[in-house]
Formats: sequence, structure tokens, C-alpha cells
Amino acid sequence: MADIGFIGLGIMGRPMAENLIKAGHRLFLKSGRSVPEALVAAGGTPCASARAVAERAQIVITMLPDTPQVAEVLFGADGIAEGLEPGKIVIDMSSIDPIATKDFARRIDALGCDYLDAPVSGGEVGARAASLTIMVGGPERAFLTAMPLFEAMGRNITRVGGSGDGQTTKVANQIIVALTIEAVAEALVFASKAGADAGRVRQALMGGFAASRILEVHGERMVTRAFEPGFRIDLHRKDLNLALQGARTLGVALPNTATAQQLFSTCAAQGGGDWDHSAMVRALELMSAHEIAAGPR
Amino acid sequence: MADIGFIGLGIMGRPMAENLIKAGHRLFLKSGRSVPEALVAAGGTPCASARAVAERAQIVITMLPDTPQVAEVLFGADGIAEGLEPGKIVIDMSSIDPIATKDFARRIDALGCDYLDAPVSGGEVGARAASLTIMVGGPERAFLTAMPLFEAMGRNITRVGGSGDGQTTKVANQIIVALTIEAVAEALVFASKAGADAGRVRQALMGGFAASRILEVHGERMVTRAFEPGFRIDLHRKDLNLALQGARTLGVALPNTATAQQLFSTCAAQGGGDWDHSAMVRALELMSAHEIAAGPR
Repeated sequence: MADIGFIGLGIMGRPMAENLIKAGHRLFLKSGRSVPEALVAAGGTPCASARAVAERAQIVITMLPDTPQVAEVLFGADGIAEGLEPGKIVIDMSSIDPIATKDFARRIDALGCDYLDAPVSGGEVGARAASLTIMVGGPERAFLTAMPLFEAMGRNITRVGGSGDGQTTKVANQIIVALTIEAVAEALVFASKAGADAGRVRQALMGGFAASRILEVHGERMVTRAFEPGFRIDLHRKDLNLALQGARTLGVALPNTATAQQLFSTCAAQGGGDWDHSAMVRALELMSAHEIAAGPR
Repeated sequence: MADIGFIGLGIMGRPMAENLIKAGHRLFLKSGRSVPEALVAAGGTPCASARAVAERAQIVITMLPDTPQVAEVLFGADGIAEGLEPGKIVIDMSSIDPIATKDFARRIDALGCDYLDAPVSGGEVGARAASLTIMVGGPERAFLTAMPLFEAMGRNITRVGGSGDGQTTKVANQIIVALTIEAVAEALVFASKAGADAGRVRQALMGGFAASRILEVHGERMVTRAFEPGFRIDLHRKDLNLALQGARTLGVALPNTATAQQLFSTCAAQGGGDWDHSAMVRALELMSAHEIAAGPR
């Protein structure tokens, strides 16, 4: 039972903060908009600034859209850094740039505090159900201190390594998920235009080496045309942007990630930024003048 | 217990034929080289030509390197077509072009016979253990007749649809396997060059949506540098060539399959045609001037 700050109460942050309150913690809250009534009714305390949150809490969690927002909330005017005292812990659970994260961690360390990067996967459903996967980078001592909080929000919790390694792991996850969707999409569009039934092909492949969670869940979506999210293409585009930016900085070649990003952009240009990411198949269908839904030629 | 012809007694065909003999069938054999002694000792009968095999067997199985060899054995001088009588069944278990397969099936049908395409996955290990995955296209009647033979050679046996659909499914399988290897390779090279431990990243991702047989088995190979085959890059290049040729004929866009083929070619240029296909990661490592083995920068 600790005094916890939570900054960023959007689609993900709000249910995560709720789960911390349910677990018995006292929460100090700040949001870009006003703090949701329900959180205040549950016992959360709204604060006027990120600085005020950091002054009152021992551990401050951020859950924000992207790197610039995290930088601003940490180091901007009335930001977290201004309210910290030595011994406090900052945990960024947003999905942001791994390289910027290492810089943020160094600057928080310099204040005598610990910094953890702890991005999540599992989406809104996982946030509500407290079943998020949490990938953590940073000092082990802080990780162990924060563990009860992570356990109130998630299930599959791993400390991968030092600062930045949590964000790096999240980027790696988003690369694999996007490229496996793309792989299944190429295979099913090929099979369908060659005259086979995509649903039966998917079924035949599930038993072998091509098996994956993506073939199971997103292969099914492609066959049944169930493209309501799920995980929105616009969000996955943001994550692949982190991968491609990071790759440029590091000097890493990610040729298929670059192509997958173009296919997501093709969907967005078709008005599909809000489609589930499995709808990447629609870009390949457009390029191949063939819809899986239409069945054999 | 039937009279079975088996043409093509290489790394895959020989153990498959052995398993049919063990199951009690009488085998008539033909190979590009001489028929292995062990098969004759076990009771197999060597024949002088594919035609002679087709004259003596009710069901003729082919297991050959690629499309031109199958065309020659089926329709060349002293080929299978010359020895067939109505009511016999031809089963091609090679991995070849799905579009050519449909033409072969039509020509065999015209002789009053049935044609099944039944490519396999599982490699030499699966062929020996009679645990192959078998993906079948063609008429259901012939499929049911051939089932006892398939069961003597494999375990996961699916009739996907009509003629060509077995080969199409095999191509789809090889697309997904190659592109999932590529996905895992991009993710692990990125993570390693960003300073994370690739083995721990792989472990953290195994619990979530990025999970696949490829991440499990080939991700491990990339981390431990275990690149002895397994499945050779040269064989996977042949299969992706079938995918890219078919895609050109059908008018299907396979952008990441094309890139994966280039990465396999990069490995081959480095002398790696005999490496396991998971060694595709070495092409990305070359392009990124960073080996996963070297660990964090």
C-alpha cells in the first residue's frame, strides 16, 4: 500500500489506475484533460501538475501517447523532475523510443531516483482485466519495489535488462507481430488467388511449423473479414515508426518492417487507420486485385 | 496391401518407400541413380523405367526435386503416362509449381486416371519417423483410396481441396515460415544492436502475441548460433522461387517474400547455401554490421 502517482489517464491509463486503487494503493492523478470522475469517486486525488504528483507520491507512473509527451511531463515546466526527491521511482509504461528512454533514465538517475521503462502489450482488454504483458528495463532494486504494482496491472512480467531494454523489447514485439501478420497475409492472398480456400489452407498450416498465435487469430480475421479492432493500424504505425527511427539511429537494416509500414500506410490512405492491424491484408489484396473474401478465381 | 510404384529415392523418397514396405505393400521402384540395395533386400522390385513402374503398380508415387523432373517422369519418353491404364492413381509428393500441377492433373485425368498432389513438410527426420505433414489436393475418392499409404508415411494429413491445392498450401507454408524467420531476425538484430540481450528478449516475447514455433525454435538457433541444418537455405530458395514464379503468373504481390529470397541469396553468396534457413539472420547482421552473438554494443 503505497502513495502512487499516475499521469496519463486515457484508454490504457484509466483502467490501469483503477486496478491500482482496487489493490489498495493511494493514487495521485493527473491527466491532459480533467481526471475522470469515477477515479476520484474511487478515492483518487487529482493534482494540478505533474510536479505536484511527484511531490506527493513515492512512485510516479506515466502512460502517455509518445516520446515527446513523456519528455514534456518528465522535464518540462512543472514536470515530474521538479517534484522528485532522492529515493523516489519513476516508471514510464508508455511505448516510446528506446534510445530517448536511456537518456531519460540517466537524467532521473542524476536526481538520485530510479527510472524503469515498463511498456505493456495486451491493449485495452488487458488493461481492464489486469492481464497486461509488462516488459521492464532498469535497476533490479526498483523492479522488485515496483513488482506489487505491476502485479496489480498485469500477469506476464519480465525484467529484460537495464534501462531502455523494456522499450527495446516492446519494439521487437511490434516488429514480429506486424511481420507475422504480413507473412500470413501474403500466404493467404497467394493461396486464394491460386484457387484454394484460404480458410482450409489456414487450417492445414496450423498443425505445422507455420503455426503462430497470429496465424490462429489474425489468419481467422482475414478469412472471416473481422476487421473491427482489436489493435488499430494507426497505433501499430506509431510503433513501427519507433522501430524505423531507432534502426536509422543504430544503423540496423529492417527491410520488411519498412515494407509493412508502407502497407499500413496504404490502409490508412484507404481510410483504414481505425481498422484492426490484421487488415494489413487489404493492402496486399489491393496490390493483387483479389480479395480473399471473393474466394477462388 | 497394394502394388505401389515409387519413383525418386533420394533423401526423402528412400525412407518414405521403406515405410511403405514396412506397412506391407509391394513396391516397384525407379530412381535416377540405381535403386538402393537396402530397398531391394527389403522386398522392393527395381524397374527399368517409369513406364514399367506404372504398368505394374495400381498407385504410382513420385518424389522428385522440382517441376521439370516431374514433367519428364510423367510425360517424357518411357514415362508414367505411357504405362497407365484407366483407374490407376498418380500421387506427386514432390514440392513443385501449383499451376503446372493443375495441368499435369488434367492430362492424367484425360487418361481415365486420378491425380493427387500431396507435398510434405517435416524433412528427412519426418520422412524417417513416418511423421510427415501431408497437404493434399485432388479428388476425394482417390484421397480416400490413398489414405492408408499417407498414414504409413505421415501423421498430419489434410485434403485441402481440388488439384493443385496441396502444392498451393505447401507454397503458403514456405512463405509463412521464411517470413516469420525474417521477422524474428529483424527483431533480434534490432534488440541486440540496441543493447539488449537477444536471448532474454526472445524469452520475454514467447508469452505474448509474438509467440510462434519459429520464435521458439529458430529464435533459439539465432541466439545460440546453431546453424547446422535442419532445412537448408538452398531448398528454401527453391520453394520461394515457386512462390515468386506463381505470384508473377497469378498477378499477386509478395513484397516480403521477394526480400526474404534476396536475404537467402545473400547467405548463399557468403557460402551459406547449406546453412539452416534460420541463418537468414546472418544476411541482416551483415547489412547491420552487428552480430547477435557479439551481444550488446
